[in-house]
Amino acid sequence: MTFVAEALSLTPAAAKRLEEKRILSKAFVRHPFFKDVLEALRLGRKFGEYEEGTLVAKTVEGLEVVRGYPKIKRALTLYPTIKKHFRGEVIFEEKMNGYNVRIVRFGERLYAITRGGFICPYTTEKARMLIDDSFFKDHPNLMLCCEAVGEESPFVPKDVYGIKKIDFFVFDIRDKRTNEALPVKEKEKLSEEYGFKIAPILAEVHVSKAHEVAKDVIEDLGRKGKEGIVIKDPKMKRSPIKYTTSEANCSDLSFAFRFFGEYGRDFMFSRIIREGFQAFELDDDDAFERRCMRIGRAILEAIVESIREVSEGKRIYDRMRLRFYDLEVLELFKEHVRRMGVNAEFSEPVEDGDSYVVWFYRLMKSTTDKIDFILKGNLWQ
Amino acid sequence: MTFVAEALSLTPAAAKRLEEKRILSKAFVRHPFFKDVLEALRLGRKFGEYEEGTLVAKTVEGLEVVRGYPKIKRALTLYPTIKKHFRGEVIFEEKMNGYNVRIVRFGERLYAITRGGFICPYTTEKARMLIDDSFFKDHPNLMLCCEAVGEESPFVPKDVYGIKKIDFFVFDIRDKRTNEALPVKEKEKLSEEYGFKIAPILAEVHVSKAHEVAKDVIEDLGRKGKEGIVIKDPKMKRSPIKYTTSEANCSDLSFAFRFFGEYGRDFMFSRIIREGFQAFELDDDDAFERRCMRIGRAILEAIVESIREVSEGKRIYDRMRLRFYDLEVLELFKEHVRRMGVNAEFSEPVEDGDSYVVWFYRLMKSTTDKIDFILKGNLWQ
Repeated sequence: MTFVAEALSLTPAAAKRLEEKRILSKAFVRHPFFKDVLEALRLGRKFGEYEEGTLVAKTVEGLEVVRGYPKIKRALTLYPTIKKHFRGEVIFEEKMNGYNVRIVRFGERLYAITRGGFICPYTTEKARMLIDDSFFKDHPNLMLCCEAVGEESPFVPKDVYGIKKIDFFVFDIRDKRTNEALPVKEKEKLSEEYGFKIAPILAEVHVSKAHEVAKDVIEDLGRKGKEGIVIKDPKMKRSPIKYTTSEANCSDLSFAFRFFGEYGRDFMFSRIIREGFQAFELDDDDAFERRCMRIGRAILEAIVESIREVSEGKRIYDRMRLRFYDLEVLELFKEHVRRMGVNAEFSEPVEDGDSYVVWFYRLMKSTTDKIDFILKGNLWQ
Repeated sequence: MTFVAEALSLTPAAAKRLEEKRILSKAFVRHPFFKDVLEALRLGRKFGEYEEGTLVAKTVEGLEVVRGYPKIKRALTLYPTIKKHFRGEVIFEEKMNGYNVRIVRFGERLYAITRGGFICPYTTEKARMLIDDSFFKDHPNLMLCCEAVGEESPFVPKDVYGIKKIDFFVFDIRDKRTNEALPVKEKEKLSEEYGFKIAPILAEVHVSKAHEVAKDVIEDLGRKGKEGIVIKDPKMKRSPIKYTTSEANCSDLSFAFRFFGEYGRDFMFSRIIREGFQAFELDDDDAFERRCMRIGRAILEAIVESIREVSEGKRIYDRMRLRFYDLEVLELFKEHVRRMGVNAEFSEPVEDGDSYVVWFYRLMKSTTDKIDFILKGNLWQ
């Protein structure tokens, strides 16, 4: 706690408030795999200027603050929203569908921090294999903000990117202490220099025509099952804005209704409202019909699938294929997941070349129990 | 307050708890139209055995307690739910789509109490015209539990029943003090004797076949745009259970998403989950396709309609046609609605034979403001 107050330069009063509000919690599992880190805490909520997910660490080389990735606000209509928020040129960058990771270097090694501010063993293992750490020697103040994407994702497995394992796509390079982002061109240049993959840059257009171009871009991404775009000021002085495809909204709805006992109603509601505004702005009659069917099917098929499984005596779970190069990291990941409060089971690891494949099951106990209760003839409410 | 403690025979400790929990609130607007009532309070929540919506009144003839209408639990599947909860014969009664009213006599006049325990001036005026009050002289301990149904409904206007104005359909006759319900046959007999309309009794079947019969009944009601059924023990010793048609669920969804700023997410969520269980139990592939389209369209059309109206500079409101036989009652109703916290406007009354037609507008300010905010190019979250 005292090292946090020191790292964040808090006044004694602010330090006291931080403690009283119980915002801080442990950010990692102590282990030789994380040997550069002596202590690490995360902010569970925004505190002053510090974003939720900010990590404060005492490392072998001193105190480190890694700012939380800022919340990106969402446009529900393209027009006049883009025009209202930007001036001059804007960049459309693909918003890839994975999980947000900040990669930093502490001491001798790389560390991958998830959105909530946890140092993730699974992601860290892959970052150390895939990311050239000489970048951090040359730029010790920077962090790589990446989407971790692919089939072997413990959080958001997707096969639309053709990535069988997992990979990192840089979308921002930021000062880890101030959260200031490099201009898009500099991010591109540095990423090229160090061989990082980046989230695809789809277009650069003048703000006056941006909503027109965005329509085509979104339609195209939707057809390919991609998630959406992030609209950026090339200089990164104005906050980016995100906008998603109908297919992504419906995929979220499927997921939320498949596990309806676990997922929040606000999550479902917000996706439905997004579809309403997109239909209003973009749809002719045919597109609207297709959207109604898409959204109805996304919701109902998901619920019915879960009911059917429980009726067949199965439990409802989400299932992810993972790959570990070191079985110690698997054990560490199990402990990490347990501390995050996830109800998980793991298959026995199966050797596959230089690594081990493990299935990670997230049990959806609330959904399973609710359906089971109803199917036994009990009443609702 | 003291009269409530006396009427409910509360111990001093219970009376104190009732007061501290702030469960009681005013149940009527004092007015000569309600001259038999000196004071009246309602329970905003369940308290001990007393249901939410229980009314306690000091009348010209003494203290009266009118029990709240009990919550009827819902079946999400027909099988095995019906079989589990009943024995022997069950009755399927139509669940009409209006609003729940308890009609009682205090002193010289009839009073209509809505679900929440308010004495409603609009409904009371109609009850006094349509209900034969000799019933209450012969049975002073009973109340009529009715669905108030028709086009001229201030709460749930529907045209599917062919009722241009408003009418009452008795579904239960209960002891107003104990809430004990008469057996279905006795309700029918008394209703016939006094000329009351009743909610249609659709079938009486043995519990072993009830789920099969219910499927046909529900399908037929759905085709006609009706709401659903209440499944009853003929003796009314076991609690009734309700089950609704897909059309009613979708109509609820339309309503909720048209006014998405006002309606709760739980309201939307519960209707969607009902559809999921119904699809699982009843649908073949074709019916499932139609259900997906029905639910998708119900939701999206409603949202887009509201967005379109705001984009045209209109405000979002729900609009009901009402009829008053006495303009004093209109004024009383305006005050009643104001006290219920409804943001309402009324048209000027227009004479129509022996009565006045008035349009009642419920302004949906939150929906209007949210849409307007987004359409101006502002960001979500």
